[in-house]
Amino acid sequence: MVATGICRTDDHGMKGKLENSYFPIILGHEGAGIVESIGEGVERFKPGDKVIPLCLPQCGQCICCNDPRTNICIVASTDNRRGLMADGTSRYTCKGKQIYNFFHTSTFSEYIVVEEIAATKIDNNAPLDNVSLIGCGFTTGYGAALNTAKVHPGSTCAVFGLGCVGLAAVMGCKAAGASRIIGVDINKDKFDLAKELGATECINPKDYDKTIEQVLQEKTGGGLDYVFECVGNTNTMVAAIKSSHFAFGTTVIVGVSDKNETITIDPMIFLTGRKMASSILGGLRVKDAIPKLVTAYMEKKVDVGKLVTHRLPFEEINKGFDLLQSGKSIRTVLLF
Amino acid sequence: MVATGICRTDDHGMKGKLENSYFPIILGHEGAGIVESIGEGVERFKPGDKVIPLCLPQCGQCICCNDPRTNICIVASTDNRRGLMADGTSRYTCKGKQIYNFFHTSTFSEYIVVEEIAATKIDNNAPLDNVSLIGCGFTTGYGAALNTAKVHPGSTCAVFGLGCVGLAAVMGCKAAGASRIIGVDINKDKFDLAKELGATECINPKDYDKTIEQVLQEKTGGGLDYVFECVGNTNTMVAAIKSSHFAFGTTVIVGVSDKNETITIDPMIFLTGRKMASSILGGLRVKDAIPKLVTAYMEKKVDVGKLVTHRLPFEEINKGFDLLQSGKSIRTVLLF
Repeated sequence: MVATGICRTDDHGMKGKLENSYFPIILGHEGAGIVESIGEGVERFKPGDKVIPLCLPQCGQCICCNDPRTNICIVASTDNRRGLMADGTSRYTCKGKQIYNFFHTSTFSEYIVVEEIAATKIDNNAPLDNVSLIGCGFTTGYGAALNTAKVHPGSTCAVFGLGCVGLAAVMGCKAAGASRIIGVDINKDKFDLAKELGATECINPKDYDKTIEQVLQEKTGGGLDYVFECVGNTNTMVAAIKSSHFAFGTTVIVGVSDKNETITIDPMIFLTGRKMASSILGGLRVKDAIPKLVTAYMEKKVDVGKLVTHRLPFEEINKGFDLLQSGKSIRTVLLF
Repeated sequence: MVATGICRTDDHGMKGKLENSYFPIILGHEGAGIVESIGEGVERFKPGDKVIPLCLPQCGQCICCNDPRTNICIVASTDNRRGLMADGTSRYTCKGKQIYNFFHTSTFSEYIVVEEIAATKIDNNAPLDNVSLIGCGFTTGYGAALNTAKVHPGSTCAVFGLGCVGLAAVMGCKAAGASRIIGVDINKDKFDLAKELGATECINPKDYDKTIEQVLQEKTGGGLDYVFECVGNTNTMVAAIKSSHFAFGTTVIVGVSDKNETITIDPMIFLTGRKMASSILGGLRVKDAIPKLVTAYMEKKVDVGKLVTHRLPFEEINKGFDLLQSGKSIRTVLLF
């Protein structure tokens, strides 16, 4: 590994908030590196290749990998692997004890072992620090707007949560030609960057006596065409749904809530025509999508680097988590 | 009015389970009749025209009527009218007391007064008894499959609730070319008609020790492409969502739940790619869609008449409600 971002999902994993994470574990799932060596039978890679590990592998064989509607591989689903390799082993130990991997990747390690289906080759000239974000955070938000929601030109959008994923969603909305992109966050320190990346305005729910859905409905004549929940908070999810236009609004749930948390909602708020969707990694087939996004970055079509607010040596990983938890960073990239 | 169906929504209205129904009220919203006279300024109708009243009027002017994504008219929404005409009056009284209308139509009356935007002209040779169902029940289910879900050829579908709306959804799935259509109901008496109309199999959740979502997931290798909830029960809605394919399943909420009822669900069950949508009257712009469906019926392309299991003189309306509540009828049509 050369670089790895610290994503909120790593923080969730560390705190035991996710299904299907097993301890002791090596966290990290958003990274970039160089192939050091390959195992027997590996055909798609050779030592020296620059790669991004795939936290959503694609076996290429299963019913889902053969269905263009989804990017979920049944064979390599996290449920099936249970923190281990396909053969049921772990390649990591500490003091003789088995260590589990995290989302097939475990990028918080100088050397990692991934299955051939859990990596994708990228342009060998790519700077690995910035493109590491394409392994998760950037692609998740950007793909949610362009691929899952299919934001249309001239539409109105709101993005709840202006962290790395939310800002990537803002970038996706802008790339899709949305005419109005409202950033929503309780931390106004994120507003400047949001506006730089495409938000046409930013609002802080704490500045209003009304609920955020009332504020957004009033601002937009009944609600937004597309709303993206990039927080992972179940209350925010309900507010996001209610903020979507009653007749044709789509809400995309992007944030990951804590395990066992639920939303409670009157289903009739959908009856007038609201829709809800959700996706992992923007619903994109990352084996092919990630190299394309890396190329787009190198061609200066998407400025992923704008999301990297902090760079730290890997040893300062705990400082990186502090920056995340305090809301001071958008994305911290750790460099090995 | 010449004929009117008794829809579950009338039963909900009678029991005060709906938002926006005001008492005393003339219920009924699924009917067909002949124009007796027109008011000043009415241009689209003349006496003698056969018409279906529209429980979802279209003003043709508002932002929603001008947006092809929706069939909801803001101007004539039930919220805005509050059981009255556009001018704030009611045209119905009983013993000097004002009576409210129901969904702009109030078809449980020999003579009704509707706004010009709340009726649509149909083929003057149409038999009004059967086509009355096109005013609500048939169109709701059929449109949910063909328009809201856009069921694709070769897909797998499940329909929860095999009443008039659910059976119309079955008919829509068949018309769309679905290869597998599973009817789900706790009343097996409905299975024969469901199969006649297109269901490839029918199952009764009570016949299993497992939950219906487990049964359907196992039968279909992970869930269905499309699931239609045509009951209006919040527990069934959750089961329907869970029965949709985890990676690309769409659930359409068609049934209307009681006011103030909610569903509680783990939002993460959507994260793998499930979608949810909902619609009133199949999301169809009924002013134009209803005459086309009437023509399709007359050309024997859709056999709406199969859904009419009982015909009663209007005076026996209470018997019609008994048939509905006991589950013995699919649709009872009252004849004036």
